[in-house]
Amino acid sequence: MIRKTRLFTPGPTPLLPAAQFAMAAADMHHRTPEFRALFQRVLAQLKVFVGTQNDVLLLSSSGTGAMEAAVANLTSPGEKVLVLTAGKFGERWRDLAKAYGCEPVVLSAPYGQTFDLADVKKALTPEIKAVLMQASETSTAVNHDVQGVAKLIKEVAPEALLVVDGITGLGTTHFDVDGWGIDVLIGGSQKAVMIPPGLAYLSVSEKAWAAMEKSKNPRYYFDLRKERKNQVKGETAYTPAVALVAGLGAALDYIAGQANGNLEQGRIALVNNAIVNAAATRAGLTALGFTLFAPTSPSAAATAVAVPEGMDSSDVVKALKTRFASVIANGQGEMKGKIFRVAHLGFFDYLDTIAFLGAMEHIAKDTLKLPVEWGQAVAAAQKVYAEAASK
Amino acid sequence: MIRKTRLFTPGPTPLLPAAQFAMAAADMHHRTPEFRALFQRVLAQLKVFVGTQNDVLLLSSSGTGAMEAAVANLTSPGEKVLVLTAGKFGERWRDLAKAYGCEPVVLSAPYGQTFDLADVKKALTPEIKAVLMQASETSTAVNHDVQGVAKLIKEVAPEALLVVDGITGLGTTHFDVDGWGIDVLIGGSQKAVMIPPGLAYLSVSEKAWAAMEKSKNPRYYFDLRKERKNQVKGETAYTPAVALVAGLGAALDYIAGQANGNLEQGRIALVNNAIVNAAATRAGLTALGFTLFAPTSPSAAATAVAVPEGMDSSDVVKALKTRFASVIANGQGEMKGKIFRVAHLGFFDYLDTIAFLGAMEHIAKDTLKLPVEWGQAVAAAQKVYAEAASK
Repeated sequence: MIRKTRLFTPGPTPLLPAAQFAMAAADMHHRTPEFRALFQRVLAQLKVFVGTQNDVLLLSSSGTGAMEAAVANLTSPGEKVLVLTAGKFGERWRDLAKAYGCEPVVLSAPYGQTFDLADVKKALTPEIKAVLMQASETSTAVNHDVQGVAKLIKEVAPEALLVVDGITGLGTTHFDVDGWGIDVLIGGSQKAVMIPPGLAYLSVSEKAWAAMEKSKNPRYYFDLRKERKNQVKGETAYTPAVALVAGLGAALDYIAGQANGNLEQGRIALVNNAIVNAAATRAGLTALGFTLFAPTSPSAAATAVAVPEGMDSSDVVKALKTRFASVIANGQGEMKGKIFRVAHLGFFDYLDTIAFLGAMEHIAKDTLKLPVEWGQAVAAAQKVYAEAASK
Repeated sequence: MIRKTRLFTPGPTPLLPAAQFAMAAADMHHRTPEFRALFQRVLAQLKVFVGTQNDVLLLSSSGTGAMEAAVANLTSPGEKVLVLTAGKFGERWRDLAKAYGCEPVVLSAPYGQTFDLADVKKALTPEIKAVLMQASETSTAVNHDVQGVAKLIKEVAPEALLVVDGITGLGTTHFDVDGWGIDVLIGGSQKAVMIPPGLAYLSVSEKAWAAMEKSKNPRYYFDLRKERKNQVKGETAYTPAVALVAGLGAALDYIAGQANGNLEQGRIALVNNAIVNAAATRAGLTALGFTLFAPTSPSAAATAVAVPEGMDSSDVVKALKTRFASVIANGQGEMKGKIFRVAHLGFFDYLDTIAFLGAMEHIAKDTLKLPVEWGQAVAAAQKVYAEAASK
């Protein structure tokens, strides 16, 4: 039987064919007017995609590189930063802060949950220079309340910078970057923007630019001040990943094309697409007998579910790959074997959700020996979709 | 919402990405050792894909070009040919025969049905020079009994040539070309071999080569004798569609790759893939209240169903495109508005079938106002698939 490879993973996500072709065609030198024109166009599109008047810079690195850039440029050794962590990527903020000699004040929530804003408020003491958090914690598929945290910072710690890892949050969450006051918002190429890994992008507020001047950290490749000086002219400080830039332009064109060329509307449609598919998937998997791992604050980027007691999520991951060439993500770290994660961000559509749930019914029945009535997960998703479509 | 374009049409069919990339990379001149090596490799692969020891030739034309080549090379004006027709493509054989001044003896079956072999036997008089038929009549999604007709020819008209349009039959039907005695079997590139239109291929028996010497028809571009002389050396008489040849090679590699590199086994798997997906689709659409248009001899290339009395299949085609960016085929000619057709040939898999049926449930409910219980079409397909997979 033919089995098409299907990525249902929260990064890399399925590649947009138009972006693949643009990448294949990107046979140009990066110190030319052609590249400068492309790069300036993509940076302008990215500002609309992020939804900000702040500068948006592109880095040739993974998202972690942009996280490091934020820490390296905005902090100094010995400073206190508040790290909000509830999973593997929150822990990365803690580790980065430590690597640069900061004193991280760590506010944790258990895996699968988000923080209590009252605790965040208490932790926002005057010494906190920056708050580091995720919009969507990919390892647990939990959504954090960026708007709520931003509001608290304005109230009780207006000097602190808000630095948000939106790597899986961008394109799956509605942000008002400038209205809420997000100083740095970070995205990655292999997520909602439908291209391979290799590029990170981040918006930087004036408040953040000012703070950067005071940082005593060493920085070179990730020196954002140097990048800003170059990128405003369509240049990059170091050799950029040219093909990925071309692919990103094509992907942003596609997203705009979903809303008659209006990229802002296209971004909103993309977020709503993730929200509806996530809700349909939660309904489908719940109908099959799985328990939502993040029932109270689920991310629209991915859905994490726990397999029933005594079962191994690795078996689900393996069977789905073997039987249907479909790839989902296992739990990370101590969650491995206990949960699996299926993504909805980027180039995913409702028919992908239907196909995934149809396949999961076979796996639930044959691999996990759950009582399955054919069509039950699909039916639950269809109800959610039909209701959303009728609005 | 994101809506991925999905072709569920019996040609063009979804493109294999590996073939698209091979086409994009096919930057070569056709009068070079590089092209000759590619072309000879692809011709050798095609022989295995067709399953014959006969010569297989490639033509840069649509499948109709190869149909014309068969008539132009194998008949002479005034000769009698038996045309078995039960749809638009059978009628094309009749029109081609007339265009070349033959006297077609037309044996028709009503649209949606196949011929009675007893009638074929009666029509096989000694004057019949050739029998022209389809393996799969794409316009009605009916399968014809090529093996049965071949057997009759051996019994009662052993001089007659058997010329089969296998354009949607190849890759969806098991043939024994040499064992049954098919003199010409014709395929097209935009069908089971997963690449765009532009190439046709055909196998030619020794009996057909001998008959060709006696034809009095004019022929130039489609002179198969000239092509044979060239193609045996890896050349073509006229400029070949180079990129499509490269794509075809990549697609045949992919089909072989589905069976550990064994192309014959890969072809068998591809046919079985179509058979299972067709059966699952028939079950799903029947569960939704549609009537099979070809209940007794359904093709595995495509499924045709009639919409309930008073409804218009054009509405289904339109709604599926508008709401889900999924393309199916309307009926052709007088069947337009009465039936629709969904394909299973080539680069289709079971999850495509699930996705299609999931979408069709929405269309049946909202567009046709049929009583739909969510998941019912998917469930019927899952039962069929589970039973096939358990064998």
